Amino acid sequence: MLLCDIGNTSYHFLDEENDFKEDVLTFNPQTIKEKVYYISVNKNLENILQSLENWIDLSAFIDKEKYYKTMGIDRVLAVEAVDNGIIIDAGSAVTVDVVKEGKFAGGFIYPGMAAMQKTYKDISPALDYSFNFELNLDKMPKNSQDAISYGYLKTLYCEVMSHKMPVILTGGDAAVFAKIFKEATVDERLIFTGMKKILQKADIC
Amino acid sequence: MLLCDIGNTSYHFLDEENDFKEDVLTFNPQTIKEKVYYISVNKNLENILQSLENWIDLSAFIDKEKYYKTMGIDRVLAVEAVDNGIIIDAGSAVTVDVVKEGKFAGGFIYPGMAAMQKTYKDISPALDYSFNFELNLDKMPKNSQDAISYGYLKTLYCEVMSHKMPVILTGGDAAVFAKIFKEATVDERLIFTGMKKILQKADIC
Repeated sequence: MLLCDIGNTSYHFLDEENDFKEDVLTFNPQTIKEKVYYISVNKNLENILQSLENWIDLSAFIDKEKYYKTMGIDRVLAVEAVDNGIIIDAGSAVTVDVVKEGKFAGGFIYPGMAAMQKTYKDISPALDYSFNFELNLDKMPKNSQDAISYGYLKTLYCEVMSHKMPVILTGGDAAVFAKIFKEATVDERLIFTGMKKILQKADIC
Repeated sequence: MLLCDIGNTSYHFLDEENDFKEDVLTFNPQTIKEKVYYISVNKNLENILQSLENWIDLSAFIDKEKYYKTMGIDRVLAVEAVDNGIIIDAGSAVTVDVVKEGKFAGGFIYPGMAAMQKTYKDISPALDYSFNFELNLDKMPKNSQDAISYGYLKTLYCEVMSHKMPVILTGGDAAVFAKIFKEATVDERLIFTGMKKILQKADIC
């Protein structure tokens, strides 16, 4: 049995204890013969995955009443994994979700690192810098690179920390964001934990 | 005598008590015969403006030691206008600058409304919404429009308010941002106030 979290760029698999990624553009899901429980935010793969008998969409087992209609299934599974805390999933978007006593208490969406860097560059070539994750958050910046880094990171940090809850970091950029969110627990397999919980609840395995 | 603040899209003039705007693409600065004291962040206009005797660049009269080298001249003039406070200049970028006892104490740069809306749309067509400025900042969102509005606005609000200083709003989107920053003073002529102060200091008028 495999678990798989499918995004817009990659398939992220968990096989017992090992996780690995495959590129959405080159990987053929038909090559896998064992059972795969998956979630996917990738609309382009909807038809092919639904046609494969051994690929089972876990979203069917979610109690959708607990969430809002257009909420991404990856966010839902991350929330399912947590009892109390604020989850930051740092990928192409940064989603921030609050869970209180096992219940989804709302969340927001912030641009991912690459998207935001492009935003600054598009506003002005003078703002074409990479973000400084070594930034001192307690000091107002006096140079351009720190001025955009602070604009991107300190604003997010301020809001997240204002909830005074344990912070859990996941997603492809979790390790980089951990430089700013020093108090956070990094759990790159959070969504898989959520998937396992759903499987257990549904009595599948 | 005219004052003029030149951005990437428009000339913003102040003639005694009336202010008016002209489009950068269609306006010819040679049509003005009286003296114009200006600042400009528009590199394309540098040559034409410097060739006109009655257009006087006020940036020459600024004590540049007080600022950092790549800081936009519009930010500098806004800071010159204030003694104590945090200035939000909401335009194509949102610049946030802190002034303590007349001294620049650092600042940061955040994307403007249009740029940020495009960022969300580019991340996913599912995030193609305009921002909701009627948003309740005390409640974590449970729908997509509020999730991006909160991501854009609450994070900024949280960081700005953490300074516990008077907030002054200026720039083309000042009135819209005032819906979120309810405590702020809106002063759309802040940069002109800074320009007048510089003229007085330099004993020009």
